Amino acid sequence: MNFSALMIAEYLGGVVEGDPQTTVDRFAKIEEGSAGALSFMANPKYENYLYTTDSSIVIVSQDFSPAGPVKATLIRVPDAYSAFAGLLRLYEQSRPKPTGVSPQAAIAADVAVPANCYVGEFAVVSEGVSLGENVAIYPHSYIGQGVKIGAGTTIHAGVKIYEGCVIGENCTVHAGAVIGADGFGFAPEGEDYAKIPQIGNVVIEDNVDIGANTCVDRATMGSTVIRRGVKLDNLIQIGHNVEIGENSVVAAQAGMAGSSKLGRGCMIGGQVGLAGHLTLGDGVKMGAQSGIDKDIEAGSVLLGSPAMPVMKFHRAWAIFRNLPELVARVNALEKK
Amino acid sequence: MNFSALMIAEYLGGVVEGDPQTTVDRFAKIEEGSAGALSFMANPKYENYLYTTDSSIVIVSQDFSPAGPVKATLIRVPDAYSAFAGLLRLYEQSRPKPTGVSPQAAIAADVAVPANCYVGEFAVVSEGVSLGENVAIYPHSYIGQGVKIGAGTTIHAGVKIYEGCVIGENCTVHAGAVIGADGFGFAPEGEDYAKIPQIGNVVIEDNVDIGANTCVDRATMGSTVIRRGVKLDNLIQIGHNVEIGENSVVAAQAGMAGSSKLGRGCMIGGQVGLAGHLTLGDGVKMGAQSGIDKDIEAGSVLLGSPAMPVMKFHRAWAIFRNLPELVARVNALEKK
Amino acid sequence: MNFSALMIAEYLGGVVEGDPQTTVDRFAKIEEGSAGALSFMANPKYENYLYTTDSSIVIVSQDFSPAGPVKATLIRVPDAYSAFAGLLRLYEQSRPKPTGVSPQAAIAADVAVPANCYVGEFAVVSEGVSLGENVAIYPHSYIGQGVKIGAGTTIHAGVKIYEGCVIGENCTVHAGAVIGADGFGFAPEGEDYAKIPQIGNVVIEDNVDIGANTCVDRATMGSTVIRRGVKLDNLIQIGHNVEIGENSVVAAQAGMAGSSKLGRGCMIGGQVGLAGHLTLGDGVKMGAQSGIDKDIEAGSVLLGSPAMPVMKFHRAWAIFRNLPELVARVNALEKK
Repeated sequence: MNFSALMIAEYLGGVVEGDPQTTVDRFAKIEEGSAGALSFMANPKYENYLYTTDSSIVIVSQDFSPAGPVKATLIRVPDAYSAFAGLLRLYEQSRPKPTGVSPQAAIAADVAVPANCYVGEFAVVSEGVSLGENVAIYPHSYIGQGVKIGAGTTIHAGVKIYEGCVIGENCTVHAGAVIGADGFGFAPEGEDYAKIPQIGNVVIEDNVDIGANTCVDRATMGSTVIRRGVKLDNLIQIGHNVEIGENSVVAAQAGMAGSSKLGRGCMIGGQVGLAGHLTLGDGVKMGAQSGIDKDIEAGSVLLGSPAMPVMKFHRAWAIFRNLPELVARVNALEKK
Repeated sequence: MNFSALMIAEYLGGVVEGDPQTTVDRFAKIEEGSAGALSFMANPKYENYLYTTDSSIVIVSQDFSPAGPVKATLIRVPDAYSAFAGLLRLYEQSRPKPTGVSPQAAIAADVAVPANCYVGEFAVVSEGVSLGENVAIYPHSYIGQGVKIGAGTTIHAGVKIYEGCVIGENCTVHAGAVIGADGFGFAPEGEDYAKIPQIGNVVIEDNVDIGANTCVDRATMGSTVIRRGVKLDNLIQIGHNVEIGENSVVAAQAGMAGSSKLGRGCMIGGQVGLAGHLTLGDGVKMGAQSGIDKDIEAGSVLLGSPAMPVMKFHRAWAIFRNLPELVARVNALEKK
Repeated sequence: MNFSALMIAEYLGGVVEGDPQTTVDRFAKIEEGSAGALSFMANPKYENYLYTTDSSIVIVSQDFSPAGPVKATLIRVPDAYSAFAGLLRLYEQSRPKPTGVSPQAAIAADVAVPANCYVGEFAVVSEGVSLGENVAIYPHSYIGQGVKIGAGTTIHAGVKIYEGCVIGENCTVHAGAVIGADGFGFAPEGEDYAKIPQIGNVVIEDNVDIGANTCVDRATMGSTVIRRGVKLDNLIQIGHNVEIGENSVVAAQAGMAGSSKLGRGCMIGGQVGLAGHLTLGDGVKMGAQSGIDKDIEAGSVLLGSPAMPVMKFHRAWAIFRNLPELVARVNALEKK
């Protein structure tokens, strides 16, 4: 990559401020920039770096007015962050992708691998697996019997997908994720527990991202369902028969117990826990480390464990911090 | 599978109510039923589905009286849930199991693999490993030197068992679990930390289930012990020298720090954390997201972080939610 | 191993109290000792075991005075724990290490493997990988393109390292850890989310330990950095562009969101959560299950979620536990 400010501005439909012949050959964060780097500045928190950065070109929003002299060439666009992200995607797409089917992979005889798929070393693709076009399966992945993987989906190294699960198109599953292990179902039998067989599966729709070492358990019966556009971060636990609505986003280390239903467009913070058999409406937002043990209405914004409306939590916590003071006031009143 | 209500009722020792010739060929949850499906209804919360389900047969408890007309054929049994679970187990047992030893597995020359074992592609079985009858080792599993695995145990894809660990009979270890990695032991040396070698092992007794991506660390010396009948969910952390008593159940993402001892028949909720060197008595129940930093008496039912008796926590939390109101009352008193 | 008390005392520069010819052939915890075992006693909490242990030799601190008769031979040293740890390390070093390069590993043609490295079965070492002397790569590990691994580092079974990441010297990465998966970066586009490509990498410096199934995400741009001497336990989440300062220690299941910076010599408890874009100073200590949502000054000792100074938390919590009593007092005041 070696592009001038002019070329970039033309591609983005932006305006150059400074030397249009300045060239860059890489991306950098504005606070880590050096000569030849292209950066962006969208968050005002980072504005001070604009005046000191060594990056050669910085993309900024068209209505931004610098408070001082700027050494870098600026490119002004309607939305600096989104323009920059677009360039990153362009770069990402230009990078070489692994190709071909390794002779060291173990692919069942009945599986048809489309010509443009990648299957890495020591991957296992079992009987009855169906693969779409442009599927990439990295080394050490295990694709159980009868699994379906849609076109354009990438399965990173060491992912384990148990039999009968379904993965949609244009999904990304990161290393070490486990899809379709048994749900945690045991029935007491005296002092022991008897296993409830988990004969359902996992269905992941299109455009879903699953983070590293995240676990999505198979359903007892029916399906655990991750709807289209859902983004799951790393080390998340999704219990059996859970259903996550379209375009919901779940941060790392959150957990959802069996049979809970999450609406569309929800945002679940890191380390949040949901009890089982709950229903959360569309657009619910749960702050990090919250815990939920009852149904939640659409649009709620909650925090705490057990969770409560976020502003209510903050007001209560502000008093909690100073409870000794409140006790002192009650002591004083009692003395009177 | 294609069974009539009569055949199922005879097998279960139940009574048919409706057409005994109705047949089913699959299982379904009552709320997802369709013609040809067998369901059950045990939890009153799901009773309303009984009157609308399309399932052809529903197993119910013998003393259940429907509040309205039911389209499905009913089979009445003493315990609907347990009867249904029994049928699921019957079905599960009838499914074909993987068999044989893959020529693509790497099995050390000194290991005797009983004829009825399964060893999948790219599994590694190291020197000195001992395998019982009917052991199943799925692809990409790593069985370290000298590991013992008891009869009837299933090791799912990508499980890593470090050297010298012992797994009992009829256990199930789900994909990505790590058994016997080093305990987290470091001693300060000036500003650095020096590693304390972890020369012990992990001992897992019979009938234990270990969830996907769960980690059980080896002991510094001696053994980390998971007693018979214990059920561990996914993404759990078990520190070095921990001991978990018989038939205790631990939900996903809980963690137990080094040298803690858990009694028999305990129930530990999701995302619970135990500090190190604690002793919890038999039958302790910890609500989800609780934190424990001291020894706990047998039979305690706790919640919160730090944990307290569950009812006490709920009473305190109810006031916490409304602390601003309490402050207002104190303000009013002070004004008088 | 078969050593006399005299030999051990000479090696440690200690003094024997009892029979110098007593021999031991293994290590044991003092509470699990048997004839022929070597134990230590450093923590007064374990002193009572000293009088009942069957271990043949016990290492104690030179200034320890027993409160009663001791059957075992004692060896007195300046620091019992550190002396014992030194013996464990000596033992550990004497154990045979795996060696050689498995013909069943897949090593790219352009990779030079130093003669004293170990590469296990079904390991994948991709194009452009650089390996130092004495590197050990266990089975099923995946080393992506262009990864650098420094001398003396051990990569346990099933570790996944994405392309372009850098691991220092004398590091240990435990089974199932994932280094360099994509950071969790998505930009809203209407109701959908568009992926922000993560084109940075992970840089792990020397003497770092990474626990089993821990995830360290690659940077969006630049590097996620784990400085020398850092110790990460199991199942930890490290977000993109995080930086962890030298010799900081993080307990299991903690999580740090994107772009947070942790100082040197910090101690982060189990299941702690850090929000993104925070700065924590040197020597910060966070109690287990704490949550942080703002910058923290060097040397702070915090607890709670949101976190506050640890003593302040304990005082507030002590009142929280008994809030119903406080309400009763306010009720009584109002009646007057």
